[in-house]
Amino acid sequence: MTRFALTLEYDGTAFFGLQRQADGPSVQQSVEEAAQAITGEDVRMHAAGRTDTGVHAAAMRAHIDVAKDIAPFRLMEGINAKLRPDPVAVTACQVVGNDWHARFSCTGRRYLYRIVNRRAPLALLKNRAWQVPQELDAAAMHRAAQHLVGLHDFTTFRSAHCQSASPVKTLDRLDVEAAEGAWGPEIAIHAAARSFLHHQVRSMVGCLALVGMGRWSEQDMADALAARDRAALGYNAPPQGLYFMEAIYNGQ
Amino acid sequence: MTRFALTLEYDGTAFFGLQRQADGPSVQQSVEEAAQAITGEDVRMHAAGRTDTGVHAAAMRAHIDVAKDIAPFRLMEGINAKLRPDPVAVTACQVVGNDWHARFSCTGRRYLYRIVNRRAPLALLKNRAWQVPQELDAAAMHRAAQHLVGLHDFTTFRSAHCQSASPVKTLDRLDVEAAEGAWGPEIAIHAAARSFLHHQVRSMVGCLALVGMGRWSEQDMADALAARDRAALGYNAPPQGLYFMEAIYNGQ
Repeated sequence: MTRFALTLEYDGTAFFGLQRQADGPSVQQSVEEAAQAITGEDVRMHAAGRTDTGVHAAAMRAHIDVAKDIAPFRLMEGINAKLRPDPVAVTACQVVGNDWHARFSCTGRRYLYRIVNRRAPLALLKNRAWQVPQELDAAAMHRAAQHLVGLHDFTTFRSAHCQSASPVKTLDRLDVEAAEGAWGPEIAIHAAARSFLHHQVRSMVGCLALVGMGRWSEQDMADALAARDRAALGYNAPPQGLYFMEAIYNGQ
Repeated sequence: MTRFALTLEYDGTAFFGLQRQADGPSVQQSVEEAAQAITGEDVRMHAAGRTDTGVHAAAMRAHIDVAKDIAPFRLMEGINAKLRPDPVAVTACQVVGNDWHARFSCTGRRYLYRIVNRRAPLALLKNRAWQVPQELDAAAMHRAAQHLVGLHDFTTFRSAHCQSASPVKTLDRLDVEAAEGAWGPEIAIHAAARSFLHHQVRSMVGCLALVGMGRWSEQDMADALAARDRAALGYNAPPQGLYFMEAIYNGQ
């Protein structure tokens, strides 16, 4: 068996998330079926992270094991041909050692959350960003975000469905930037950690938005974290603004 | 009657172009019906340009005349509410004089054409850019583009359906830039002129792509222009990479 590491780009709008579901389309099912069509094998995909319905990926990492003798480039081209017209594409494919695991070898994950702060609904970025009509103070959001950086118990920002063994995580980065997007000003929120709890980024962003609107103070954010209680969560931001940007592996 | 200038953002994928069509949805029909629902009047929209099926706009300009006494902000909010879920939004609305005409007062138009130069199909930019798998030389494309700048007979780059009185136009700018897009490298082509012929930008981009692939030389581009013959056209680029970016009016 040869292990292939894949880089995946997908639009999460039409999928019931990354992971295979009994009741709807998933990124995993699309890729596995495409790989099966090319190799004739029952292929199982493992990914660096699990994204929810509506969450996108610019560069998710995954791996599959294949017995057939096939070059990475041909495998990538074949899978991409079979994936059409699903909005998912393999943008890179390489052979890795059999001890390399897309999920367990991953030492860092990076997400982007995009907010468009305007009254008008989104047309070009429909399903691609969170439209917030109330004026947001990005600088206040950034200051509040710094209270979350570091080693903390993130129970407040964790979904009831989270399967992580512990709510204690180290958040390496949570930066809020006013950015010039392709179609006008955006607020970009960059989050990085070894790993995240389920809904953690969306829950942090939802509370940051309350700070941006002036409904929460910086101290309210610190208090919400200290509460270690899901009931202290102010708001869970919607999925369509969230993008899985990068999975980091030691030595590559 | 009060004349309102509108700025429109739309995803052209689902529309049969900007202009009202008998056989399918159009931006014009969506906006006119939304304005009619708000004002109770038979509203007619005039736009700065006509875009084809699949062509997008970041900031198309248009105007409508309304008898009802209504503030611009309320008109914009009302139209946007009625436009849902169509992927078109009014991003600005202001009162203008009755001699201001979105099309005839317009003194400059600016387009962007986006190319993603990679093997893998597009997922996040599906229907939003032209994916070209062959490697493109953006610098060669830029040099060839400069042969088209200036006052020329653009018959070669004009659709058979073009209704313009003359094929002679002044192209003010045609810049090809390797740019960092949101999801990776892109080639951005910026075109500006007082006005364009039907299909002119797409036809120029199609021929520039041939130069980028090395199939056409700079001189081939100059020869195609000099031929003043549609048969000399090398390639017409697809609509989904094209965005109407700006309409310019004297004094604003």
